[in-house]
Amino acid sequence: MQNYLIYISYNGKNYAGYQLQKNANTVGAEIKKALLSLFGEISELHGCSRTDSGVHAKEFAVSFKAEKQMPEKTVVKALNAKFPSDISVSRCEYVPDSFHARYSVKKKEYRYVIYTGKTRDPFLSDFSYSVGRNLDIEKMNRAAGFLVGKHDFTAFKAVGGKTEDCVRTIFSAGFEENGNVTVFSIVGDGFLYKMVRLIVGTLIDVSDGKIKAEDIPEILKEKKQTPGFAAPPQGLFLYRVYYED
Amino acid sequence: MQNYLIYISYNGKNYAGYQLQKNANTVGAEIKKALLSLFGEISELHGCSRTDSGVHAKEFAVSFKAEKQMPEKTVVKALNAKFPSDISVSRCEYVPDSFHARYSVKKKEYRYVIYTGKTRDPFLSDFSYSVGRNLDIEKMNRAAGFLVGKHDFTAFKAVGGKTEDCVRTIFSAGFEENGNVTVFSIVGDGFLYKMVRLIVGTLIDVSDGKIKAEDIPEILKEKKQTPGFAAPPQGLFLYRVYYED
Repeated sequence: MQNYLIYISYNGKNYAGYQLQKNANTVGAEIKKALLSLFGEISELHGCSRTDSGVHAKEFAVSFKAEKQMPEKTVVKALNAKFPSDISVSRCEYVPDSFHARYSVKKKEYRYVIYTGKTRDPFLSDFSYSVGRNLDIEKMNRAAGFLVGKHDFTAFKAVGGKTEDCVRTIFSAGFEENGNVTVFSIVGDGFLYKMVRLIVGTLIDVSDGKIKAEDIPEILKEKKQTPGFAAPPQGLFLYRVYYED
Repeated sequence: MQNYLIYISYNGKNYAGYQLQKNANTVGAEIKKALLSLFGEISELHGCSRTDSGVHAKEFAVSFKAEKQMPEKTVVKALNAKFPSDISVSRCEYVPDSFHARYSVKKKEYRYVIYTGKTRDPFLSDFSYSVGRNLDIEKMNRAAGFLVGKHDFTAFKAVGGKTEDCVRTIFSAGFEENGNVTVFSIVGDGFLYKMVRLIVGTLIDVSDGKIKAEDIPEILKEKKQTPGFAAPPQGLFLYRVYYED
């Protein structure tokens, strides 16, 4: 059996997330369908992460095993011919037997796109959260700084998230402004269910003065859900997956 | 009666073009619905142009008359609250009685977006034509130069286009490359049905060596349909409408 790793991009708008589910159109189901038609038979698919309904991925990794040995370039070309126009594959690699797209992840980067123009932009509405006002980047970056490091992120876990160990390490977190588009980037060793969206919503509340930047350490310490909201899914992109430190 | 002019942007993906039609979801129908609910009663809507199914507009102008006099800013705000997320309005102006969004147009600019990356980009697939190869910009620009000026554009009119007078003046036409994105801009006093898409398809054929740049004057002179193809609608944007020379 050959263990394969493929990197895909997708526009999540028309999907109920990545994870395969019965009776739902998921990115994982589209990938499985294309792989089955290419390889005939494959092992279980391992996705690097579960993305929610409407969330996008610039780089999402999937591993699977197949009896057939196929050149990497052929896999890329054949899959792109089979995928719908909102999914594409950029590369394919042979990986050791023990590699697992989810368990082998060392770091992940998410990005969250906020549109601050007064009038919404109909070309960005599927790919950003349109807030219709300027944000206080300096204040939000000050708040984001408190998230960097090893912390218990229970406060930024969605109600209903099952994970018990909520300790994660954040390597960097911050906003960059470019005209009407403000992008939040966050790199960490792992993320809880809805964690990035809860962080972004909380930091927007910081910009609006509803929460103080200096309250973030206390919010983390209390381990009760953040008073901030979860920013909507269409602004969120899984941006990069790292398998090396 | 007050004559109003509004400027809108729309993502054309989910619409059968601008022009109102029975049994079709059109941008014009969405605008009319929102205007009726805002003004109660309005005159006939005049759009600056008919855009095809799937074509976008960065700036599209619509004029209409209403008994109610409403402040321009109120119109913008109220319409944006009523429009779906793929349509927005950027400004509203009071215009003289004689103004007509279509007949008063002096110049229009269209842009056509081509994606040249080898792997398609799922975030641009609704907003560009993905050709999967590099184009010869220099050759295409040489060919585009022959279109500038006052010409009979019968060769670039879709079969079935009803317009009889096919003489139009093109003020500028050319491509600009920026990484994997190549944008064609064309400014003219008017455009025939599918003219921009037939021009772009023909110029891509020039890049590929199927048509010579130097053949363009002859293609224009012959007044038979171009041997080139019509580039697909999702790359086309009505970019700007000029009511002043």
